[in-house]
Amino acid sequence: MNAPGLTIGVFDSGFGGLTVLRELLPRIPGARYIYLGDTARLPYGSKSQTTIARYAVESARFLESHGAEHLVIACNTASALALREIRASVAIPVTGVIDPVVEAAHRRHPKGDVLVLATSATVQSHAYQIECAARGLRASEKACPLLVPLVEEGWCEQPVTRDVLRIYLREALAGCTPEAVLLGCTHYPLIAPAIASTLLELGSQAEVIDSARATAIAIEQSIRVSHPATAGTTTFQCYATDSVEKFARLGSQFLGESIPHVELLDLGG
Amino acid sequence: MNAPGLTIGVFDSGFGGLTVLRELLPRIPGARYIYLGDTARLPYGSKSQTTIARYAVESARFLESHGAEHLVIACNTASALALREIRASVAIPVTGVIDPVVEAAHRRHPKGDVLVLATSATVQSHAYQIECAARGLRASEKACPLLVPLVEEGWCEQPVTRDVLRIYLREALAGCTPEAVLLGCTHYPLIAPAIASTLLELGSQAEVIDSARATAIAIEQSIRVSHPATAGTTTFQCYATDSVEKFARLGSQFLGESIPHVELLDLGG
Repeated sequence: MNAPGLTIGVFDSGFGGLTVLRELLPRIPGARYIYLGDTARLPYGSKSQTTIARYAVESARFLESHGAEHLVIACNTASALALREIRASVAIPVTGVIDPVVEAAHRRHPKGDVLVLATSATVQSHAYQIECAARGLRASEKACPLLVPLVEEGWCEQPVTRDVLRIYLREALAGCTPEAVLLGCTHYPLIAPAIASTLLELGSQAEVIDSARATAIAIEQSIRVSHPATAGTTTFQCYATDSVEKFARLGSQFLGESIPHVELLDLGG
Repeated sequence: MNAPGLTIGVFDSGFGGLTVLRELLPRIPGARYIYLGDTARLPYGSKSQTTIARYAVESARFLESHGAEHLVIACNTASALALREIRASVAIPVTGVIDPVVEAAHRRHPKGDVLVLATSATVQSHAYQIECAARGLRASEKACPLLVPLVEEGWCEQPVTRDVLRIYLREALAGCTPEAVLLGCTHYPLIAPAIASTLLELGSQAEVIDSARATAIAIEQSIRVSHPATAGTTTFQCYATDSVEKFARLGSQFLGESIPHVELLDLGG
């Protein structure tokens, strides 16, 4: 579907949310995308709920004031801890990354067992477990703190990443037999093939469901209702609150294409 | 030497500085140690110099007001970016972790080539390179972002840690032939044996010099002058600004003994 003229704001604490933008671009062409990475204040995971909500609300308002008609919270921590505050602070529809992937798992494996791979902060919030329980899914959560630094090192294809996955997945599968494995971190789509093949190697038939893709599909469906399909040119503009060079360099790995220009933004302390 | 009655304050943004305390305890028995881990506000590495200096000064003043007569900044980021501000804000001697290890390398390998392993933030500050250059040492710096999460996972003995070290050290040794390898992060002493044997495996004869030990030796020497050696009971008290349970659990790995009690401290936002 095409959505000419429609402006979609995508927010993350860093680069990871670019994996969501990557899935949105081919699904909703013709739209204007604004991406904001609050890189100066990451990681959100180690901050208090009050601080996370304040940061996320500032970013949401920035995107709305720059024309966003739909807001995507492509950040697991903010989706887990600040979605209510963000929704209360803007007048546009807001989609987080947790609900769509849990909904996708529920549609495909109703009443199934799922395994959620995520950062320590996301696991500690139990946001996925709560969302799964609300739909009758039993969720095991596994914190995988090494996966983000491995992806950020650009080591997606290194054998060492497979070794780390083998350790984490063997530990996780000792406690559950999941029908689906949910990737609860926006960095993980970059190693989704390695996760899927490691699961197979360990004898698991679980299907890998990626939150970036599930979120993009959910947004495509909600926008299809409000915007008729016509042609137009897709554009995207990136803002970062810290080093724009680093954002362009690291971010292009997540987006899967080069980022020609990043604008520096000061949201304050 | 013993230093009865002497109070030594040790500050770090987290647990890592406990490797410095671990080296101090046997060297200066009979002293009273107060350790402050500003865990609520870590990592310091991603924050601005102004913010790091403000946080570090608050912690330094807390330790001084609780009786510290000597202050150890067992945090590479604060040692690199805020030592001047800390020294200006307290009336007691202050020792950082960078100067002692560089001094130790210089004594053993004057005019030698050294390799510094550190976090990305420390490498970006070039604090070691500057300190080395001031003593006529040529320093190569290698950022090793995966080592902290590997140590924090408790994977010091996992083969995967050796694999990661092999990748980092092979890359680093392609550009230099060091006489000494400086461990520029307080987490690294926990994998010092693995670093030493990986260097040997890669054909390097470099000596590993650990900043925790070098710092403890420097403090022992400076205190020997001011405090005569007599008997006494060593005590230590830990303060953390976030989860005291997590501090006691993770911290005991770094200290090498159990931490019976940790007090929660609120230093504000």
